[in-house]
Amino acid sequence: MTQPMNHQWLLARRPEGLVSVQDFQYVESSAPEPADGEALVRNLFLSVDPTQRGWMAGDTYLPAVKIGEVMRSFAVGEVVESRHPAFKPGQIVQGLFGWQEFAIARPGTPSSPTPLPAGVPIETAMSVLGLTGITAYFGLLDVGRPKPGETVVVSGAAGATGSAAAQIARIAGCRVIGIAGGPEKCAYLTGELGLDGAVDYRSADPAKALRALCPKGIDVFFDNVGGPILDAVLAQLALRGRIVLCGGIAHYNDARPSPGPSNYLALVVKRGRMEGFIVLDYLSRSGEAVTALAGWLREGRLKDRVDLVDGLTNAPEALLRVFAGKNQGKQLVRLGNPTRPA
Amino acid sequence: MTQPMNHQWLLARRPEGLVSVQDFQYVESSAPEPADGEALVRNLFLSVDPTQRGWMAGDTYLPAVKIGEVMRSFAVGEVVESRHPAFKPGQIVQGLFGWQEFAIARPGTPSSPTPLPAGVPIETAMSVLGLTGITAYFGLLDVGRPKPGETVVVSGAAGATGSAAAQIARIAGCRVIGIAGGPEKCAYLTGELGLDGAVDYRSADPAKALRALCPKGIDVFFDNVGGPILDAVLAQLALRGRIVLCGGIAHYNDARPSPGPSNYLALVVKRGRMEGFIVLDYLSRSGEAVTALAGWLREGRLKDRVDLVDGLTNAPEALLRVFAGKNQGKQLVRLGNPTRPA
Repeated sequence: MTQPMNHQWLLARRPEGLVSVQDFQYVESSAPEPADGEALVRNLFLSVDPTQRGWMAGDTYLPAVKIGEVMRSFAVGEVVESRHPAFKPGQIVQGLFGWQEFAIARPGTPSSPTPLPAGVPIETAMSVLGLTGITAYFGLLDVGRPKPGETVVVSGAAGATGSAAAQIARIAGCRVIGIAGGPEKCAYLTGELGLDGAVDYRSADPAKALRALCPKGIDVFFDNVGGPILDAVLAQLALRGRIVLCGGIAHYNDARPSPGPSNYLALVVKRGRMEGFIVLDYLSRSGEAVTALAGWLREGRLKDRVDLVDGLTNAPEALLRVFAGKNQGKQLVRLGNPTRPA
Repeated sequence: MTQPMNHQWLLARRPEGLVSVQDFQYVESSAPEPADGEALVRNLFLSVDPTQRGWMAGDTYLPAVKIGEVMRSFAVGEVVESRHPAFKPGQIVQGLFGWQEFAIARPGTPSSPTPLPAGVPIETAMSVLGLTGITAYFGLLDVGRPKPGETVVVSGAAGATGSAAAQIARIAGCRVIGIAGGPEKCAYLTGELGLDGAVDYRSADPAKALRALCPKGIDVFFDNVGGPILDAVLAQLALRGRIVLCGGIAHYNDARPSPGPSNYLALVVKRGRMEGFIVLDYLSRSGEAVTALAGWLREGRLKDRVDLVDGLTNAPEALLRVFAGKNQGKQLVRLGNPTRPA
């Protein structure tokens, strides 16, 4: 088989401040040939995730992407050539396939391909039934441990992970307030998602709004944002409140460290707990999450929204969309369609 | 009985920035007469605790001391007159008796008198066998949950609570590094207390020193201080590290909120937990702590140090000593001696 051309985005430099297109380099080469035990995958969708900013900057829970390496990304693709008995051309698989058209997938490595949940659109399998939904499920339920009747606040609530976490909290019997930027997102939260209240942090003082909406205090906070919103929640934390640190998108593009939460000593006064987690630790239990999420999705209790950008060339722009808060739900980059229906 | 004169320190104003003597007013009046169900207690020792700064400023886990009220303080005193069947003159009791010579003690109120552990000096009963030791015991073991072989770091390690926490961590089989200000305190930590290492935050960069002393990361941090020390620990947190927030003396005298820990997102990367607690929640289990602490004390595995200031008039100065880090061990104010041996 003649190898087609491959296009890739390489990491050109470590970002300083906000990610920019200049941090990446777009290159063309021949698609690689799979060795024994490998498969060649053609990427169909790239997952766009705020955590990618961390991978560009340095070692975190994964080693940093090296300068000159393909930009790391979760992706879904179709096997086009296989030299591994477990994979057949036409199979749809997911993995850390990176910002490129063709990837070599090899079981047992970070690019290890795994199957998608059956019977759902690829976009859904990449959002609420993928790592995004699994993150919300374990972060909220396992780390936050909400009890029915408690007040749960979610930041970045119109985003992919936040909207899943907020809806799961509703399903768990909690009163749920979402925080998002702009009237349109807030209307989505209280309208389509049925949350009990929303705070537009762009027009309202979050501390004041949360005092009004959560007069008995905040029992669980699922935080994707950090910054002043985290401080506002700490000021209104309930006794034995729990703060689930999923991320801190307000900080990811800091050129230098920004101040942490001034009000952190509220954790003493309120006997509170602030705890971080990484979804990769829960992969062995992902079946439990996907089963529950798929059930809620079927019952119409869980809604999913996907924001598509077309074309590999637009991958950096898609990442910037997420940091500007322009995405409406899970941000994906669509590269192509499967050669046959899943 | 002719009532003697009473002297008291009242709260004159809310402090701005560092506590000062001018925040208090020294007054003289007749000692109160106990009503039915009350006892009159003559204070022998006042406990000096950083948390008193919080009580002066506003409502926290206890309501604020009101302007014009006697300054709140834990104390030990002798019953001199009783109209309650459970108390007899000569009994030594402890409670929130305040900065005054004579206090009315009434069961069931914050000034409820409780007996002291038997057979130990009053000073010991107010330090390592009192709330200070109980704070260290539950904070370290119940919130921090150290495992043998883990690395534990304690800030304010030459202080009353910190030195108890550090020694309990040693007894629990951990490698223990103490952080304190000045070479004398650090020599005490590695010498008399037998800790595995000490960091003098006044002469060393805490982040650099902790990297060198805790190359495998910090599993448990018992924090009395906050500020840059908390940030330095976050930068060196081990996977699943736990930060026990006992207090934040670096912040108590802030005139305006100071920045929180910039590195708090290390809690995500390291799946860490930062949790606050208040010893008052553990009073029902204090017997368990006192039994264990008294045993270690008898065996010589736990050392206690008390720093005495004499005279009620010096109570504000004693509180300032603690904020200046001048105290060597538990700070007490001695008002008098019991009329007969305990």
